[in-house]
Amino acid sequence: MEEKLVIRPFHFTLCIYLLSSLSVSTLRGQTKSPRDWGIQIGVLPIGKSNSITDVSGVKVGHVTLHAGDSVRTGVTAILPHGGNIFQQKVPAAVFAGNGFGKLAGSTQLTELGNLESPIILTNTLSVPIAMDAVIDYVLALPGNENVQSVNAVVGETNDGYLNDIRGRHVKKEDVLAAIRQASEDRPSEGSVGAGTGTVCFGFKGGIGTASRQLPGSLGGYTVGVLVQTNFGGVLQINGLPVGKQLGTFEFSDRLLNNVDGSCMIIVATDAPLDSRNLERLAKRAFMGLAKTGGIASNGSGDYVISFSSAPQVRIPFRSDATLQSVSLVPNDLMSPLFMAAIEATEEAIISSLFAAITTVGKAGRKVEAIPIEKILPLLPAKD
Amino acid sequence: MEEKLVIRPFHFTLCIYLLSSLSVSTLRGQTKSPRDWGIQIGVLPIGKSNSITDVSGVKVGHVTLHAGDSVRTGVTAILPHGGNIFQQKVPAAVFAGNGFGKLAGSTQLTELGNLESPIILTNTLSVPIAMDAVIDYVLALPGNENVQSVNAVVGETNDGYLNDIRGRHVKKEDVLAAIRQASEDRPSEGSVGAGTGTVCFGFKGGIGTASRQLPGSLGGYTVGVLVQTNFGGVLQINGLPVGKQLGTFEFSDRLLNNVDGSCMIIVATDAPLDSRNLERLAKRAFMGLAKTGGIASNGSGDYVISFSSAPQVRIPFRSDATLQSVSLVPNDLMSPLFMAAIEATEEAIISSLFAAITTVGKAGRKVEAIPIEKILPLLPAKD
Amino acid sequence: MEEKLVIRPFHFTLCIYLLSSLSVSTLRGQTKSPRDWGIQIGVLPIGKSNSITDVSGVKVGHVTLHAGDSVRTGVTAILPHGGNIFQQKVPAAVFAGNGFGKLAGSTQLTELGNLESPIILTNTLSVPIAMDAVIDYVLALPGNENVQSVNAVVGETNDGYLNDIRGRHVKKEDVLAAIRQASEDRPSEGSVGAGTGTVCFGFKGGIGTASRQLPGSLGGYTVGVLVQTNFGGVLQINGLPVGKQLGTFEFSDRLLNNVDGSCMIIVATDAPLDSRNLERLAKRAFMGLAKTGGIASNGSGDYVISFSSAPQVRIPFRSDATLQSVSLVPNDLMSPLFMAAIEATEEAIISSLFAAITTVGKAGRKVEAIPIEKILPLLPAKD
Amino acid sequence: MEEKLVIRPFHFTLCIYLLSSLSVSTLRGQTKSPRDWGIQIGVLPIGKSNSITDVSGVKVGHVTLHAGDSVRTGVTAILPHGGNIFQQKVPAAVFAGNGFGKLAGSTQLTELGNLESPIILTNTLSVPIAMDAVIDYVLALPGNENVQSVNAVVGETNDGYLNDIRGRHVKKEDVLAAIRQASEDRPSEGSVGAGTGTVCFGFKGGIGTASRQLPGSLGGYTVGVLVQTNFGGVLQINGLPVGKQLGTFEFSDRLLNNVDGSCMIIVATDAPLDSRNLERLAKRAFMGLAKTGGIASNGSGDYVISFSSAPQVRIPFRSDATLQSVSLVPNDLMSPLFMAAIEATEEAIISSLFAAITTVGKAGRKVEAIPIEKILPLLPAKD
Repeated sequence: MEEKLVIRPFHFTLCIYLLSSLSVSTLRGQTKSPRDWGIQIGVLPIGKSNSITDVSGVKVGHVTLHAGDSVRTGVTAILPHGGNIFQQKVPAAVFAGNGFGKLAGSTQLTELGNLESPIILTNTLSVPIAMDAVIDYVLALPGNENVQSVNAVVGETNDGYLNDIRGRHVKKEDVLAAIRQASEDRPSEGSVGAGTGTVCFGFKGGIGTASRQLPGSLGGYTVGVLVQTNFGGVLQINGLPVGKQLGTFEFSDRLLNNVDGSCMIIVATDAPLDSRNLERLAKRAFMGLAKTGGIASNGSGDYVISFSSAPQVRIPFRSDATLQSVSLVPNDLMSPLFMAAIEATEEAIISSLFAAITTVGKAGRKVEAIPIEKILPLLPAKD
Repeated sequence: MEEKLVIRPFHFTLCIYLLSSLSVSTLRGQTKSPRDWGIQIGVLPIGKSNSITDVSGVKVGHVTLHAGDSVRTGVTAILPHGGNIFQQKVPAAVFAGNGFGKLAGSTQLTELGNLESPIILTNTLSVPIAMDAVIDYVLALPGNENVQSVNAVVGETNDGYLNDIRGRHVKKEDVLAAIRQASEDRPSEGSVGAGTGTVCFGFKGGIGTASRQLPGSLGGYTVGVLVQTNFGGVLQINGLPVGKQLGTFEFSDRLLNNVDGSCMIIVATDAPLDSRNLERLAKRAFMGLAKTGGIASNGSGDYVISFSSAPQVRIPFRSDATLQSVSLVPNDLMSPLFMAAIEATEEAIISSLFAAITTVGKAGRKVEAIPIEKILPLLPAKD
Repeated sequence: MEEKLVIRPFHFTLCIYLLSSLSVSTLRGQTKSPRDWGIQIGVLPIGKSNSITDVSGVKVGHVTLHAGDSVRTGVTAILPHGGNIFQQKVPAAVFAGNGFGKLAGSTQLTELGNLESPIILTNTLSVPIAMDAVIDYVLALPGNENVQSVNAVVGETNDGYLNDIRGRHVKKEDVLAAIRQASEDRPSEGSVGAGTGTVCFGFKGGIGTASRQLPGSLGGYTVGVLVQTNFGGVLQINGLPVGKQLGTFEFSDRLLNNVDGSCMIIVATDAPLDSRNLERLAKRAFMGLAKTGGIASNGSGDYVISFSSAPQVRIPFRSDATLQSVSLVPNDLMSPLFMAAIEATEEAIISSLFAAITTVGKAGRKVEAIPIEKILPLLPAKD
Repeated sequence: MEEKLVIRPFHFTLCIYLLSSLSVSTLRGQTKSPRDWGIQIGVLPIGKSNSITDVSGVKVGHVTLHAGDSVRTGVTAILPHGGNIFQQKVPAAVFAGNGFGKLAGSTQLTELGNLESPIILTNTLSVPIAMDAVIDYVLALPGNENVQSVNAVVGETNDGYLNDIRGRHVKKEDVLAAIRQASEDRPSEGSVGAGTGTVCFGFKGGIGTASRQLPGSLGGYTVGVLVQTNFGGVLQINGLPVGKQLGTFEFSDRLLNNVDGSCMIIVATDAPLDSRNLERLAKRAFMGLAKTGGIASNGSGDYVISFSSAPQVRIPFRSDATLQSVSLVPNDLMSPLFMAAIEATEEAIISSLFAAITTVGKAGRKVEAIPIEKILPLLPAKD
């Protein structure tokens, strides 16, 4: 994705006037999720922890690099399952909402319909080092001694507004640590991992997660989403025109601030899906992004990577079998999963904003957390 | 797209309890647009008539077939300009949000990046007759005497719930009449033309239109949208959770009603764009659909066709020139156009619902217009 | 596809000098296949009849319209299996080598990964009537009484050089007859069905077919191909530079004759493949076209439609099952199938040329059959 | 791409019996090109040096790493022009013939339709280090001091049969040296740069290049191609069935050797094309690969990257202009360019084989150069 907040011709200004009045409590970070504040996105029930790790086997690990005046970046690793992902690949797909981004590994993933590495999220200029680390990780796994080809999947957003991105502070060891520390616990959100230095709708963005679990009559499947939010537009929270009401839109001299950036979206499910239906699922996550007011601006790298963690659809690296037998959700039963992906993505993005904390970074720049106290009055009275 | 309202396994019920109390006035049809009711979608200014015909040169014509107990269908024609469209093709693109639909002409349009016929919208089983009529129309245009190849672009949604679709009541003459009657006036909305028999979010759908005009500092371009709404999900009006509040979601025995269907979206602009950036623009219209609560269900044919009507980018059928000189909007300046497409699509869809009238059709089935009086209390107080 | 033989700027001339000396025997049509002449394309063994109908269950029917001075067209129908194709859909995919063509049904086929109609081939302007006939056919099948949506798949090439294409002489009944007459016998080749009026490499083209059967150790699967040849380039027969040697290339005033046109390619296999691997298979058929000297010129509609007829991967229209169990060929075992598709396509194209007969049509135009006696001396001595 | 020569189930054996009799002269490397031997591929005239550098401004640089027993790898850099490629981007496109490969940068290149870095070719596991080097290079260019986002385009094939690929011997400095040394001279071919350790059709592969120049009446444009050959199939040289005649195909126990691998293809032209027509051009290069007997096997990463070096279509990184004026080749005039791309690709691949020399590498493995003396008798007598 393109670096943020660069002034470019022919844009219009989106000024946020109210940020200067943030309370000290905001600076300490949010402790409540959107649901704690009564914001209930969608109509489907959430999973156990309302997180991507509700999808059985999925693990997430963060390494946060917050150092000195200007290191505000990090790494987030998503592991589809706890085993050797190269030996036991998972069906997967990619959808590019807007492809101004350096996502690595997408073409092979699409051609073969599978994922053979952990997914790493980091900053734009650290994609290569993250790929190199993934290769190290895969080559070193027991059983992979003869492997000579690894499709490392690495996504990014550009945290260059707050972070000294040209300094390329992410090291191989940071990536390996994120993988190593990955756990099935609910991941931290906000200004952590790959979300340490990101900016979303003019506020501090970061990592967010959410999930939906379909009722048993609809298959009982779980869809979990994790996002790295670093994009712009006109914020809506559960449909409320927060951006419009908090801010002021001035159509000044050819400027549109804050809309560039990116959103990486990871969608996991335990539904047994093939890559074709996973691609369709990925496309629905982009619809969830749309509902938050994102516009997938020209400079945005808005990619969705989706995968199925269902054990019965894993693809062995080498097999003597001449046929692979799988039981798949048919097309006709996809719609509830589509709805789940939309809802979980919308909520994960909003959740990233609520969890992120005001951050000061490169060149003394400060990006405020979303001002909850200004938003609460806009919410409808609770039932 | 797939026929609507078929009960299929593994879905959940979305019951709309409140429709039985519709007032008589509703049956007479809406006379006010969403904006008349104070519903202001987005932040960009609208075009002169808030319609696709705000884009200079674009014409729209409807033929409505409402006859007997069960003919509830029609044709809508969109002409990119008033001239010979085959001799003066326009740059164009297609985006498939969900491709369960019979859109004709998409592959050539995509390969060559241009549109050489009027765009026709009708019902699913009338696509062939509409194509045939387009071919008649193009072959008969003065100057096309030697033309032997026509790429007819025809979209559809399935109005088989209210309409005797298997009867295939659309005739060639209806299609030709829609083309002939096309004008630069603001087109009628609601239960007209290709929207005569459609259903959207469980209410009567139909044709809708809206536009946005960028400020001069952003290029001053207009983006106009026309939709044929026949899809489902959980309706949101300018973010308000209308579907959630009006209805009740019961997760009953594997049913999800009302979500299948389709939405055809036509995006016109006078911005000089090439087909690549028109495809990106088309993708943003799909984001507008998402904001209304649509989920692009499995059985939905959600296609966007976008084109530029700017005279300077037209593509002559035959030319002695060995180079075509064009002045194009660069990537960097696309974001405001993206926002315009999102906003205009969202508003066009909502506008189709407000304009449509309660309709009784095949087998005595009745689909109610959206109950405005139930929605108004949900709206925020006007400023 | 675009009409053939139109003189357009910036092309170069490919003159074929030797056609005037054709013997009378040629005019009576070829009776020998390329293999009869010792032309053995590729290294894989052929199927039982070296035809698409070697794939179990596949049926082909032709209706040839050869009447008066200028009706030189027809219909070819390919049925994936003998049952109700709408109720028992087959996995399928499309690849567009060059999309200047009016292929109908591709987007739904791609979205859902399946085919629910016979595949019809005809001329460019008869695509709509053929679609209408397919809809008639599907709606009338026992068990389809409530069907309201049919994705008719119809391909075409432009036979407007020999045929009065603007007269649109193909009627619904012709299409229905082609379907009805379809049989599992080896289909006729050459100037029959949809190949009646086509032109290929400057010679008379038409329908061709071929197949390959993998050895048992490679799965024993059959890949069958049927082509409708109407394209140009510089002909190679099993690698021999026939076009180069027979003709003379003059780079005259901006003309390149004979290269426009189209090639529709149908690839059937009994290998149990999903739509993703069928798309990959389709792409290899395009490689087979390349080997004949085709260049996929700007005005060419070169599409490949591939499907699996394996009974165990059929997709029921409606099912109570919440999962579909399938046994699929894994990625790692696709390469022999790829090679089979390349070889069978190359041979099917050459076979169409050998089978086609000199044809006189519209405006007294004559297109000669390929002059076998000129080619034989170019062949290497048989082993 | 996947490592080569791994024995996998369900393949068939392609044995090459004749390699053991190679003459000493072969071991010293070929000094003659295919044309020197009378092999004239295609009908179009070649460019000045029959090389990608015939396209004005294009530069190529190699760094060859041939050390010890098992380092057999390298880097090849292709520069679209001599200036600051980030500040003056070029229109570009990608086509994936078969996407089993780790090509970096493709999604942004496709979304924006442009290329903003040199193209680097190397081995599979060195893609990350090459990307990192490209980022170093771009960030350090004068004028790029504030750049925070670079889309590094890096392709690869897997030289792990001859090279100790897991050792990752390519260093940043090697990549930077390849860029630095790039020149407009005809590049070396064969076992150099990224082709040092590759294997093609069972022979030593490597780098190859060729070009075509259209006659002035067709625009006079040049199309240049550079390939990194590392793939398999059944070799054809200008149509001659060399692989079939030299080797013996035994359908033994589920083995098909030598077909995996990859082919990276770079297509440059001075024709002013937009990204849509560049993508079409890229697709034709894949047709050229097909003509050599390649099958785009499952494990092959066959990508084509195409770009236009025409100065008038360059895309400035930042510009005050609100419109970009370009003069483009229209669709109708693309066919000669398509033919040029097919021919140049076919010849570049064959040229890589003729230039490569017998190489001994990892674990004492030896891959022989193509045995010219066995091939010459198969050629037709010269005119």
